[in-house]
Amino acid sequence: MASIDANPASGTRDLLPAEVARRERAFTAIRRTFDAHGFAPLDTPAFERLEVLTGKYGEEGDQLIFKILRRGDHEASGDADLALRYDLTVPLARVAARYGSQLPTPFKRYQIAPVWRADRPGKGRYREFFQCDVDTIGSDSPTADAATLVAVTDALDALGLSGFRVQLNSRKALRGLVEAYGIPAAGESDALTALDKLDKIGADGVARELTERGIDAAAIDALGADLTADDPAAAVRARLERSTVGQEGLAEVDRVLALVDGVVPVAYAPVLARGLSYYTGPVFEVVHDQLDATIAAGGRYDGLIGMFQSSDVPATGGSLGLERILLLLEEAEAGVTGEAGPQVLVTVMDEEGAADALALAARVRAAGLTVEPYSGGGRLKLAKQLKYADRRGVRIAIIRGAEERAAATVTCKALATGEQRTVPLEHLEATLAELLEA
Amino acid sequence: MASIDANPASGTRDLLPAEVARRERAFTAIRRTFDAHGFAPLDTPAFERLEVLTGKYGEEGDQLIFKILRRGDHEASGDADLALRYDLTVPLARVAARYGSQLPTPFKRYQIAPVWRADRPGKGRYREFFQCDVDTIGSDSPTADAATLVAVTDALDALGLSGFRVQLNSRKALRGLVEAYGIPAAGESDALTALDKLDKIGADGVARELTERGIDAAAIDALGADLTADDPAAAVRARLERSTVGQEGLAEVDRVLALVDGVVPVAYAPVLARGLSYYTGPVFEVVHDQLDATIAAGGRYDGLIGMFQSSDVPATGGSLGLERILLLLEEAEAGVTGEAGPQVLVTVMDEEGAADALALAARVRAAGLTVEPYSGGGRLKLAKQLKYADRRGVRIAIIRGAEERAAATVTCKALATGEQRTVPLEHLEATLAELLEA
Repeated sequence: MASIDANPASGTRDLLPAEVARRERAFTAIRRTFDAHGFAPLDTPAFERLEVLTGKYGEEGDQLIFKILRRGDHEASGDADLALRYDLTVPLARVAARYGSQLPTPFKRYQIAPVWRADRPGKGRYREFFQCDVDTIGSDSPTADAATLVAVTDALDALGLSGFRVQLNSRKALRGLVEAYGIPAAGESDALTALDKLDKIGADGVARELTERGIDAAAIDALGADLTADDPAAAVRARLERSTVGQEGLAEVDRVLALVDGVVPVAYAPVLARGLSYYTGPVFEVVHDQLDATIAAGGRYDGLIGMFQSSDVPATGGSLGLERILLLLEEAEAGVTGEAGPQVLVTVMDEEGAADALALAARVRAAGLTVEPYSGGGRLKLAKQLKYADRRGVRIAIIRGAEERAAATVTCKALATGEQRTVPLEHLEATLAELLEA
Repeated sequence: MASIDANPASGTRDLLPAEVARRERAFTAIRRTFDAHGFAPLDTPAFERLEVLTGKYGEEGDQLIFKILRRGDHEASGDADLALRYDLTVPLARVAARYGSQLPTPFKRYQIAPVWRADRPGKGRYREFFQCDVDTIGSDSPTADAATLVAVTDALDALGLSGFRVQLNSRKALRGLVEAYGIPAAGESDALTALDKLDKIGADGVARELTERGIDAAAIDALGADLTADDPAAAVRARLERSTVGQEGLAEVDRVLALVDGVVPVAYAPVLARGLSYYTGPVFEVVHDQLDATIAAGGRYDGLIGMFQSSDVPATGGSLGLERILLLLEEAEAGVTGEAGPQVLVTVMDEEGAADALALAARVRAAGLTVEPYSGGGRLKLAKQLKYADRRGVRIAIIRGAEERAAATVTCKALATGEQRTVPLEHLEATLAELLEA
């Protein structure tokens, strides 16, 4: 038979054991944290009916949705009726609408799961990648926003990612800012897009963009002066006093700041916008100090669930930049041998010894160790088995040929040091414990 | 906006927190067992290039593959180039071919992951469901077959599913059986299909089917006599002496029986076929005694990986009937309240108390408990918060109004008994520990 290309599909990855183990460790730390914060796990299907997803992510997003062909007689039509989930938020909104009264209010859930986007694959950009979301549905209280911040930053701490700071703003404060600087409502979206780039392009760059977008020079000058002041946050705060919605936004920011004071390293970030999508209240991002990169973000989105039912439901949440975080952890762990094979390999010296090896493995396992009997084929050479043990990161090889079986002894070999002990069979567990401790 | 149907797509399920928690408990028990047996986790993408999957599952299987529409300009063509994985075995075979020398030999992996089939949805039949596979690639040794049996049955034990027995056969013994009873080679597939139904339709039913399929009456009579003998296995064994391949098969069966003797409750099952797909050597199924249902199965398939490369690679493995097992566990757990909310809820009595509640929650969490501050919106009524606590399965509510804050005390209320204690703040952790123990 002609052989088939054995690569995974473009933009997807096979995760070999060392990588799965690394990711599972991270996922477990995150799950434990969110559990400890009273969030509960939710799981939704990989695919949704097409109309659940389309129209939620903007035109550009819609084009990146993987669509599934209709089946059976309809396949020939070339039509799609299902689609792979594009994020975890829209399925959550559907669940909130579907199970409303069956769920506690507020409904606090987390989900760590893959999503799929037909993006052009590139370095660090995949068509299948994991998202990690934590959300509170059905509460308009700032306590919910604050609890999100605490849970998200605790999860980062649990992952060993210290050295981050949180930037906080409010979509209401942003609307106030546009109002206070005299930017016309029609220019709001353009202005916020430019302002959101402040960190990347600086105050001059923002001013240039605003000019290009036709914003009034007086407004740009005032903004520029405030953003380059000694304390930009204080300068913008003063300006927001002129706008009702701006004051509301500031109050929202200050409420959350007060709630997490001394717990989370958070500061008011007057031009942070977090895109312009569905956020309606506080928005935040967590920036890793050394990398100057966003590793988590979120905010309040009180309008999204209303797409699936007649009434709006308030909601707030956050998302860890999981793939970026996993990359950071991988770098931090560089040099650590990944493959976590079993602690013990029971070698097989001859055919007659195979049943004995299985029995020994069961005995060692009963002592709480991870262990396998060598189960490779071909000739039973010890050198080959020890090489395999080394490849798997095994710490101790048990060797027991005909002679040891006859004498009721067993040999334990520590692979790192080469130390080898032949002991009575009843001392097996104790010997393994000693060698593992050494 | 017109509201959208909020149900999950046909044949798929939303897994609410109690259900996710139940499944995660089972998955964790299985993962631990396979880890303890030296198997390592592998993860492959949800979708594969279409040609990786087609032609592997027979005509009927091919029709159940979910196909993904080409993207961008090609979308209009109505063609598919990707497909959702249909099982975990074909992706494993692809991985074995792709990473061959980078993997240890033998390569022992497990995978617990969803697969998708466009089956007609029905009771207990889903279009998205989990499979759990454990396989050893690159070994022709019976030790690998035996180690699979031990790992699979240990996993069932770890899940609390005692009371099962293992039926073991060999595809070679089956070929020998056909030969020994004088069934023409052309009728082999038909005969095995009929024989595989022995448990369901009895010896008479099998004889009827064989007659319908045009098998010689003398062969049917001989088979019928042996299968209804006092010891059918012994009768078939005697008959297999006449066939070389039959003897080979019996030797294979006996070798595995000897290797797991006293460890796994296993018996030779002379007509067990496990379908007719890709198995080449030993095949087994694990039958739950009470249910008389298969809860795990597997066997050796030395030909599959050769589809992705020029040479064959021996392989053997097993699969837990995960969805069926989860259903059994659900029944066993019926009556157990599912939702595992946090142990402690810190109520919020007034706006001023919210920051205090967050700080108390952090303190309780530092003591190792799961806890959340009440983060619902609306009026801060205690009754509403206690109802929410009850709904989440919370065990203790912390209550701390202005009076307690002024007095540096705190009130802990055990929700099951209603017992309530007001203690100095420094006694919080000790009081919680006592109430949780009660």
